[in-house]
Amino acid sequence: MNIPPKVTLIDVSARDGLQNEAEILTPAQRAELVQRVSAAGLPELEFGSFVSPKAVPQMAGADEVFKTAVRNPAVRYHGLVPNMRGYENAVAAGVTDVRLVVAASAPLHEANFRRTIDESLADHTQIVARAKQDGVHIEAVIGGSFGDPFVGRTPVSAVMHCVDHYYAIGVRDISVADTVGMGTPKQVAEVITTIQRTYPDVTLGTHFHDTRNTGFANVITALDLGVLRHDASLGGTGGCPFAPKAGGNICLEDLVQMLYGMGVDTGIDLDGLIESARWLQGVLGKPLPSRMLKAGPVYPVFKPVSATPAAASS
Amino acid sequence: MNIPPKVTLIDVSARDGLQNEAEILTPAQRAELVQRVSAAGLPELEFGSFVSPKAVPQMAGADEVFKTAVRNPAVRYHGLVPNMRGYENAVAAGVTDVRLVVAASAPLHEANFRRTIDESLADHTQIVARAKQDGVHIEAVIGGSFGDPFVGRTPVSAVMHCVDHYYAIGVRDISVADTVGMGTPKQVAEVITTIQRTYPDVTLGTHFHDTRNTGFANVITALDLGVLRHDASLGGTGGCPFAPKAGGNICLEDLVQMLYGMGVDTGIDLDGLIESARWLQGVLGKPLPSRMLKAGPVYPVFKPVSATPAAASS
Repeated sequence: MNIPPKVTLIDVSARDGLQNEAEILTPAQRAELVQRVSAAGLPELEFGSFVSPKAVPQMAGADEVFKTAVRNPAVRYHGLVPNMRGYENAVAAGVTDVRLVVAASAPLHEANFRRTIDESLADHTQIVARAKQDGVHIEAVIGGSFGDPFVGRTPVSAVMHCVDHYYAIGVRDISVADTVGMGTPKQVAEVITTIQRTYPDVTLGTHFHDTRNTGFANVITALDLGVLRHDASLGGTGGCPFAPKAGGNICLEDLVQMLYGMGVDTGIDLDGLIESARWLQGVLGKPLPSRMLKAGPVYPVFKPVSATPAAASS
Repeated sequence: MNIPPKVTLIDVSARDGLQNEAEILTPAQRAELVQRVSAAGLPELEFGSFVSPKAVPQMAGADEVFKTAVRNPAVRYHGLVPNMRGYENAVAAGVTDVRLVVAASAPLHEANFRRTIDESLADHTQIVARAKQDGVHIEAVIGGSFGDPFVGRTPVSAVMHCVDHYYAIGVRDISVADTVGMGTPKQVAEVITTIQRTYPDVTLGTHFHDTRNTGFANVITALDLGVLRHDASLGGTGGCPFAPKAGGNICLEDLVQMLYGMGVDTGIDLDGLIESARWLQGVLGKPLPSRMLKAGPVYPVFKPVSATPAAASS
């Protein structure tokens, strides 16, 4: 088992974690979330997405979140962008780290972005050209890389169609996303090794959801293959109140706890992170999936789990 | 990644899943649970434990569960046994598959069994001798193999102290249990490879809890190392109402779904299993952790997750 000494975790709670919540947080609340997460030592985070506020009211005012949050110069603040209009709004707000988003599977892509995959990719070609002039860093996020709720499993070739495009236009940072939590470790290994063999100079990242409890198995599989960048969400937020079958992102503090248990450095203050997860749980007014909020950490400081374990446990 | 074509799953819902529940099920209800699980195609299951009904009222009448459940001759019905008295009660009921339980860490063992590890091991030596005469199959389950809530991480040497003993007295079926969900994939790899190298002829099994969301990452790690026997619990039942930090066993139907997604045969009818999990949820009167009850399966039959995925997801 290949366990790296250090990995980079990217919190997506202020974007993917909140975009489907029934409770709509104000830009000021989201700015506080962003500040709390960066204060806990996250090296990177997504602060929001530049999409239509009509389509996703939860993300309205992403520019305000970016501008009002007290930013740490050592932290990278990513704005998610689906199209040129979103890119222009992000850059106008001063954003220098942009994540372009596409879906590998046509039905999922078209339902999300109301245009074809190739229309998005053509648009992204123009964005990448503009970003070079603007000095903006681009990372591509390929949603639905493992499955699409409308048609099932995503073939590796569909993921590679997007990867090929981004590589050809000069993007070297690519993240594969399991938007609906349909991926398995075997599939993760197939997608990742295909990209690694085809483009050894691409820096890969992952974005897993825990819809079907496979998130941590998927992330450990990617880790074992040398992938060192992983998205996760404070509190395990995510999921959609209008789609009861949707599930949240993998839980950031639970992932930090597992990594610390294996001696992997993330630079993150686990106790501070848990405190912020508790704050977020209060703001959202409902229990979050986080196991750290329930069971507490084992590492780095061991804390007793229970004073009276049940009899005859195993 | 080493993915085997077939694995054996052992349901422990009628034992570990229920032994900590506030709602105490009658032997008749537990017999129905056992019947439902075996009808769904489980090749093995734990139907209960032979412990003091004063200490664990949830397990009272394990003999009745065994005797009244309509048993399938192709299914192995394991009774968990901590000591000679439990063994005698199990054999008197006609049980032919006994799981002996010990904990690798002294504080956890002593809190559970009110005697020392070596006292239990000496008792188990006598049980194994009796079992040979009785034609009873013995499997040893080593609880706390990765952590102990009282003292933290369990050293591999402590696990090996128990493994050495069982091997010396002729036991070749040994399961390592993460009773309190403190293990990480790295630790699982260390414990399993140590046992495999020391005793290549031992048939290993695992028993993981999802207290800190590491259960599926741990099971995939064990699978990759060639371990083909894994405990799990219908609905993800487990956890203790008097110890809010305790977490349930890994969820059986979620595990089946992940394995089917990787083409691994378990012989289990996933739809039937989910139906039984829904029944159990009704009996216990509270939501169970099962993701299959919420999100539904992707495999073997693909079912749409959501008609309207959220905008700008990734």
